[in-house]
Amino acid sequence: MIFVFTGNGKGKTTAAIGQGIRAVGQGKRVLMIQFIKSKKWPTGEEKTIQSLEPKFQLIKGGEGFVGIMGDKLPREVHELAARETLKIAKNAIHSGEFDLIILDEVNVAISLNLIKLREVLEILKKAPSEVDLILTGRGAPKELIKIADLATECKEIKHPFKKGVLAKIGVEY
Amino acid sequence: MIFVFTGNGKGKTTAAIGQGIRAVGQGKRVLMIQFIKSKKWPTGEEKTIQSLEPKFQLIKGGEGFVGIMGDKLPREVHELAARETLKIAKNAIHSGEFDLIILDEVNVAISLNLIKLREVLEILKKAPSEVDLILTGRGAPKELIKIADLATECKEIKHPFKKGVLAKIGVEY
Repeated sequence: MIFVFTGNGKGKTTAAIGQGIRAVGQGKRVLMIQFIKSKKWPTGEEKTIQSLEPKFQLIKGGEGFVGIMGDKLPREVHELAARETLKIAKNAIHSGEFDLIILDEVNVAISLNLIKLREVLEILKKAPSEVDLILTGRGAPKELIKIADLATECKEIKHPFKKGVLAKIGVEY
Repeated sequence: MIFVFTGNGKGKTTAAIGQGIRAVGQGKRVLMIQFIKSKKWPTGEEKTIQSLEPKFQLIKGGEGFVGIMGDKLPREVHELAARETLKIAKNAIHSGEFDLIILDEVNVAISLNLIKLREVLEILKKAPSEVDLILTGRGAPKELIKIADLATECKEIKHPFKKGVLAKIGVEY
């Protein structure tokens, strides 16, 4: 099955992680591949997921935020990273090693045109039916929703950043 | 901070679990208290969370679905369970033992009138500010959203059950 978590609200990546936690508990092998988050920025989820290895594995393929939050990397670096990450995803999907693969923030990589929607759709269509896939990130294109079995829009009703609260360790990352 | 995950879409409980996973990775002590799920029904999240104890603890205080899915329990049994679970939550909030406490499906317990909204609001207002709280479940009352720092509506765009797919182990529970 293909799941999509999109929308402007908090909870997309964490919902995918929670789904991974649930799957691990049922004996499934889970891989999360992150399209935006980079190895350089350690996150809370990373530390806990590492303690669940090899049942739950994590690959941080991104190079960090693109064009915001002080990002000074040339666009090509982000494009290359996203393309490589997509290759890793494709191989993992066909490896037979995972029952659930999370493509974290892949929707953002598509929106930013770091990778082509067409290629992602192609990979999804060719994925073995026994592999569950979760795609996260705001701005999921309608073609992706169409191909998905389940889609949730995480819609912001209230967000503390708007009240001037800064990102908090263990909450935002 | 008080977080609310509500709405009719998939991802509310899993988002809370993912948030817990993130917090554990940052050295925080997490407790999830489930208002509807009962001890009798083992879930995937339960098995994985047990492997993270004592950093991540889980209490299943509910008696299962209320009035649906073959539930034959007298309403009083559900009410008693929910009231007891709320007492446990209140004590945990003031115990100083947890940095993040998830009240899973508490919104449903309120909607079903198993516990009073008034009592829940009272507990939230008196909670120490250093304890983060996450409340999940569809139908969060507006008074709860008002008191929350962050609220996300998980809105169903597409759901496989509507296509006749049954609940799948490791996905739905």
